[in-house]
Amino acid sequence: MNMYELIVKKKRGGELAKGEIDWMIREYTAGRIPDYQMSAMMMAVCFVGMSAEETKDLTLAMAHSGDMLDLSAIRGIKVDKHSTGGVGDKTTLVLAPLVASLGVPVAKMSGRGLGHTGGTIDKLESFTGFYTDLTPEQFIRNVNTIHIAVAGQTANLAPADKKLYALRDVTGTVDQMSLIASSIMSKKLASGADGIVLDVKTGDGAFMKSLDDARALAEEMVSIGKLAGKDVSAVISDMDQPLGSAVGNALEVKEAIRTLKGQGPEDLEQLVLVLGSIMTVKAGRAENTEEAERLLRDSLESGRAFEVFKAFIRAQGGDPEEAEHPELLPSAAYQEAVCAERDGFVSDIRTEEIGRICLLLGGGRETKESAIDLSVGLVLCKKKGDAVKKGEPLAVIHASDPGKLSEAKKRLLEAYEFTSQKPEAAPLIKDIIS
Amino acid sequence: MNMYELIVKKKRGGELAKGEIDWMIREYTAGRIPDYQMSAMMMAVCFVGMSAEETKDLTLAMAHSGDMLDLSAIRGIKVDKHSTGGVGDKTTLVLAPLVASLGVPVAKMSGRGLGHTGGTIDKLESFTGFYTDLTPEQFIRNVNTIHIAVAGQTANLAPADKKLYALRDVTGTVDQMSLIASSIMSKKLASGADGIVLDVKTGDGAFMKSLDDARALAEEMVSIGKLAGKDVSAVISDMDQPLGSAVGNALEVKEAIRTLKGQGPEDLEQLVLVLGSIMTVKAGRAENTEEAERLLRDSLESGRAFEVFKAFIRAQGGDPEEAEHPELLPSAAYQEAVCAERDGFVSDIRTEEIGRICLLLGGGRETKESAIDLSVGLVLCKKKGDAVKKGEPLAVIHASDPGKLSEAKKRLLEAYEFTSQKPEAAPLIKDIIS
Repeated sequence: MNMYELIVKKKRGGELAKGEIDWMIREYTAGRIPDYQMSAMMMAVCFVGMSAEETKDLTLAMAHSGDMLDLSAIRGIKVDKHSTGGVGDKTTLVLAPLVASLGVPVAKMSGRGLGHTGGTIDKLESFTGFYTDLTPEQFIRNVNTIHIAVAGQTANLAPADKKLYALRDVTGTVDQMSLIASSIMSKKLASGADGIVLDVKTGDGAFMKSLDDARALAEEMVSIGKLAGKDVSAVISDMDQPLGSAVGNALEVKEAIRTLKGQGPEDLEQLVLVLGSIMTVKAGRAENTEEAERLLRDSLESGRAFEVFKAFIRAQGGDPEEAEHPELLPSAAYQEAVCAERDGFVSDIRTEEIGRICLLLGGGRETKESAIDLSVGLVLCKKKGDAVKKGEPLAVIHASDPGKLSEAKKRLLEAYEFTSQKPEAAPLIKDIIS
Repeated sequence: MNMYELIVKKKRGGELAKGEIDWMIREYTAGRIPDYQMSAMMMAVCFVGMSAEETKDLTLAMAHSGDMLDLSAIRGIKVDKHSTGGVGDKTTLVLAPLVASLGVPVAKMSGRGLGHTGGTIDKLESFTGFYTDLTPEQFIRNVNTIHIAVAGQTANLAPADKKLYALRDVTGTVDQMSLIASSIMSKKLASGADGIVLDVKTGDGAFMKSLDDARALAEEMVSIGKLAGKDVSAVISDMDQPLGSAVGNALEVKEAIRTLKGQGPEDLEQLVLVLGSIMTVKAGRAENTEEAERLLRDSLESGRAFEVFKAFIRAQGGDPEEAEHPELLPSAAYQEAVCAERDGFVSDIRTEEIGRICLLLGGGRETKESAIDLSVGLVLCKKKGDAVKKGEPLAVIHASDPGKLSEAKKRLLEAYEFTSQKPEAAPLIKDIIS
């Protein structure tokens, strides 16, 4: 077998066999296929595409390129959740302890934020002393005792994907649907869960800007999962405005805590319940999603979900007092409201730009090496469809550096659009694919 | 400017601007753009294509990546000829001295053979002492005195093309028409001629197997040349059987000498006259091709062309006695006829295979480093359309190693196909584009 022939085969519209894909990924990971051949292959895939079978084979080859986590020591059906990334997306912070409170084992690998989107691990590090570098033994013991553990991704999870993604990132080959799907799913399959619920975001704040693209990606990932023998569903959810009100690490933790106490924003609570009820059914803890949703609501209202959250923070080195008293969490020195300059209704919020303003304030990372300021961010007072009077605050900016306030305010004002008539509301949940 | 953005632009169907192509070729040649980005770009070009303007810009950028030969010290209009490569293609050996005999300045850069096709310089080295590493001064002096000089390509002629071709060769991106055309034309433009006549071969023994592809390549090259301000024409000629009878270096020189004396095979003489009359008109030595052809025929018959050939061999260190007495040129120890096993007409000769048999005998090079045996090869006794009786020789194999004779004979027999009815003759000249 040689890479030249595989490139020509794909270029001419051919379908690569499982043996060819396995060989290619193994040799590439080992450094025996040069980057310049793999980038030519990736570009050919961008034009020719890959069949469902090829995509599954690529995903499995990448999943098996490093460690495959063994979660068999955890009792029960393990269900993982993955979001394709958005702005203000603190879903995992609420969803994981909530589902765990029903006895569903939540054994989660999470990532850090990159670009305009945030990451769960950064957010959790708002708690003093919180750590995610658990040993495999700790990880399994925590899930078996309190039903929840969140660990950072180990370096050797799907290394082929890591290497291939870095190459695609600099050769203009990131946006091919099968390649995106196999990249995400390879890590999920290596993480060892029995079931997976995917939260595929669509809209201006998401990587998939159009609903068609989001649906295609969701279908591709569900199909890969099934071919790989996993129980996978995908929820397509709106990212044409930030989820909830808070954008920024500690600010989002505070909003998550309110939501766990039953006092969160409606959209966040709705998404958590939709995703959570699917996870609960997959884990065999409810007959159907209606029953699951009742159980989850009850857990929020009774305070059980919040108790699990505190136990989780404690089990990973954090101080649960900071959850009881969120004012102890990092908070920014400067807080300034940005006020409307006209009456009207909010018709649009440029969501990626909101993420970028948070980045400007120091709340995210442009590259993997950047340090982040957990305290900064924005809290939106007005969301799409809300009526606004001139002079009313649209959002409050939380900044550590007063020198950045004026640019942040200017850009935030420009990120809002208004109409004189109340716009029609777009549904949060666009589709569910399983 | 950055390469990532250029890749994405081309991938999305965009047209690269001259400044972008110049920058890309300059940075790539200097090693500041990595191979993995350039191979992604080349693959995108294979799918999206390049406009005539882009192809011209790429050709010029590559032509200017190294030395541009300055032929201004040569008097008269310099006309170069280039063949896309074939089997038994000894055209230059006859054409160059013939045209020079009319006073047309022939200042030619030639290459060595690669793969199943031969090269002019290898053939000329059949003459003891012949050399092609002329100094620029010698080269110009020879053309000004005897109207002809043939030099090997210097290392620094279009180095960008050299580097890019090596990359395309291992990434499945060699067969894109605009890339092939710009590769050939960049070297021709760097060689400094005022006019160029292209001999584009088509058929089984050529790189362009189909007439459509050959015509597309010819049109692309003529268009590039014109956009670059050169007087360019292309002749599309048949390569569905070897040109003439001889295949192999010294064997082809002997056939070329016969042709220069007016005793050559009809197809070779015809092609030489067609190409030569176009060159003669471009050089301003005849009003039209009919007049040019009369002058050329006269030069063959009068022996003037052969006199120029001998002067040329002498001027580059060779012994003209070997031209007067071709039996002094290298000849192989073993000569064996391959005879027909049935009656019929020759309907097809697998021409690339004929080239490969010559390679097997040691007469060509698989890689640039291979040494070659100038004496070996084949002489065809029967060509397409010829009637054959069982037991009559089809060809004579010239070998140095008797151990290779039996495989060569077996493969030669398989390369011939027969029918019982005389097949229709295909024209040698398929088209002329200017």
